[in-house]
Amino acid sequence: MHVLILGGDGYLGWPTAMYFSKRGYEVTVVDNYFRRNSCTELDVGMLYPIPSLVERAKIWHELTGQEIKVVIGDLTDAEVMRSLFDGTVEYSWAIHKKFSGIPETIVHYAEQPSAPYSLISYKHANITITNNLLVTNNLMFAVRDFARDCHIIKLGTMGEYGTPNIDIEEGWLEIEHKGRKDTFLYPRQAGSIYHTSKIMDTDLMWFGVRMWDLRVTDLLQGPVYGMVTEEASIDDRLKTIFNYDEIFGTIVNRFIVQAIADYPLTVYGKGGQTRGYLNINDTLQCVHLSEKNPAKNGELRIYNQIMETFSVNELAEMTQCVGREMGYDVQIKKIENPRNEAEEHYYNPTYQGLLDLGVKPHYLDNDSMKKMFKVVEQYKQNIRRDVIFKGVKW
Amino acid sequence: MHVLILGGDGYLGWPTAMYFSKRGYEVTVVDNYFRRNSCTELDVGMLYPIPSLVERAKIWHELTGQEIKVVIGDLTDAEVMRSLFDGTVEYSWAIHKKFSGIPETIVHYAEQPSAPYSLISYKHANITITNNLLVTNNLMFAVRDFARDCHIIKLGTMGEYGTPNIDIEEGWLEIEHKGRKDTFLYPRQAGSIYHTSKIMDTDLMWFGVRMWDLRVTDLLQGPVYGMVTEEASIDDRLKTIFNYDEIFGTIVNRFIVQAIADYPLTVYGKGGQTRGYLNINDTLQCVHLSEKNPAKNGELRIYNQIMETFSVNELAEMTQCVGREMGYDVQIKKIENPRNEAEEHYYNPTYQGLLDLGVKPHYLDNDSMKKMFKVVEQYKQNIRRDVIFKGVKW
Repeated sequence: MHVLILGGDGYLGWPTAMYFSKRGYEVTVVDNYFRRNSCTELDVGMLYPIPSLVERAKIWHELTGQEIKVVIGDLTDAEVMRSLFDGTVEYSWAIHKKFSGIPETIVHYAEQPSAPYSLISYKHANITITNNLLVTNNLMFAVRDFARDCHIIKLGTMGEYGTPNIDIEEGWLEIEHKGRKDTFLYPRQAGSIYHTSKIMDTDLMWFGVRMWDLRVTDLLQGPVYGMVTEEASIDDRLKTIFNYDEIFGTIVNRFIVQAIADYPLTVYGKGGQTRGYLNINDTLQCVHLSEKNPAKNGELRIYNQIMETFSVNELAEMTQCVGREMGYDVQIKKIENPRNEAEEHYYNPTYQGLLDLGVKPHYLDNDSMKKMFKVVEQYKQNIRRDVIFKGVKW
Repeated sequence: MHVLILGGDGYLGWPTAMYFSKRGYEVTVVDNYFRRNSCTELDVGMLYPIPSLVERAKIWHELTGQEIKVVIGDLTDAEVMRSLFDGTVEYSWAIHKKFSGIPETIVHYAEQPSAPYSLISYKHANITITNNLLVTNNLMFAVRDFARDCHIIKLGTMGEYGTPNIDIEEGWLEIEHKGRKDTFLYPRQAGSIYHTSKIMDTDLMWFGVRMWDLRVTDLLQGPVYGMVTEEASIDDRLKTIFNYDEIFGTIVNRFIVQAIADYPLTVYGKGGQTRGYLNINDTLQCVHLSEKNPAKNGELRIYNQIMETFSVNELAEMTQCVGREMGYDVQIKKIENPRNEAEEHYYNPTYQGLLDLGVKPHYLDNDSMKKMFKVVEQYKQNIRRDVIFKGVKW
């Protein structure tokens, strides 16, 4: 079985590549180093340096004997995308440079993933829209033209739903109106340009599924936390990218760094913003179980990929509690909200589908957070306080 | 009052420019000749040649004394868009080259408007997405940054709704679910990449309205027919672009040309596809009434801009009937549907909002169609049979 991972250098992409490789899959990763280049452009450092994608693939091969083929290329270029299917691909690194053939499964992570990034300026908004839409569209047409039975696993976001005043179902909603019924994509309205670009992705994929019987699983994920996965634990150089800045750092990861750096935890406004969260190890389980249980032709299967919900205040308090146990004098500071968002709202999402597939959740509690503190502590000297809060407003 | 018309060279753009100019508005038009260039690229001729946008503005000025300022530029370039607001704009033609100032109203037509165009190939799909999304996003950010009180009148399409099994409301739907209520954008699912790009436009504008209190009227229009507007009737050179090909020709216009050219009317599949239609003169009324009654700050006001509904079979039969009265032996030919669409479906859209604003509809009947036949007849020698059906499939 051949798994193609688009965005294979990212926070989730690289751990996913190792996860499948370890389990005997043939794996190809593609990336254009967007995340790394953006970190450089915006001057927001990572917690520790990481080898290039080619170097990581070589290290993985040396340590495990497994091959992860690497393509460095920009998937907004349709010809690069199509080369992955028509056999003209040029591998940047591989033991065997011969074309691996059409993948059975594609994991699509190749998107600009940050809400604040998308609102730094109109230019960053345009980059987000162009990147995310063109990669998704190029993928859809390549699969239509070369590999209609290929299963696309696309990463969506729970942020597509926003914070509606009714329960959030898994992707779909049956609506009764004036005595007639139909089933629709659950209504979406997002809180950033990034999240809006993911709504648009869904619009596109739903079109492809209806028109050409494509097979798509859309994983609407909440913010992910954590950095150590089993595969990375064999060598520090295999650890995934870890950002703790306002642009690319997700909230739990960032709060832990702030606690260790003696930087008061920044709660935006009232702190009642509630979202669903999951451990990076659960992302891997979810993607793997989706791969093992693919969507059917003509099916857009949607899962809400979260394991539990927290408000920002709850996360701040948990971080403070764990930090204090570990000897840090963690402060919480409520600051004026730089974003336009509901700070108190109804939030009741369903998330049963992936549990039914067999995911065994890792929950966030004091113990698991303490483990994350211990990893971050090793890199304490690397923490740059100036990148934690940049104040991107919208 | 200053009206800025984006896409001012198009089928609707140029008539709209003259309509406002005649009524004493200051008018600026912007276009990059996308439509004309595409007609050349795809070799789908127009029924009659039309002067360039600059020439048309000069003719209009000679005949009426009114000035329509012309900017030839690509609005996917954010700097071109922003120049229209920050005063750095370079007019391609104007009597007075001094900046006209920030417009009170912007009419946004600057989109790739064809469903078949968007599905010629993956490249055309990408052009459609890039053009439509970047122009809309650039507009949204320019208004946010320079002109938050400016009223945006954006052309949407009834095709955003698709053909749901429940009544189509005007843009919004209140949903009750498990005992709780919320109001959402009416669920959308479109039948082409073009129509999907318009859903995405709506996603974007709804974001801008919620975040920055923008004022937006979204006119979800059905296919438009007709070519003669009052302002154009003073000189043939002022007539709007008239396409009759499969790519850019809307159905009523195309059927009339086919009838005159002795080309059987091409009905796709069963012909039960039902849509809402309107006369080009009603588009002008709708845009003008929307301008006179603007949306409020923080309001996305949505109107379904159609005056009546017809099935494809009904349009074919009406064209056949009128054609026969005028001496043409009009045949109807059912062909295999090149599109993936419902050929029989429920369709019950509401369209009351614009009537309430005061639109006086022109309905399509044998008399009004006969007038169109008479105009097209004058250009009978120009009709190219080879462009009528190209068979773009999806």
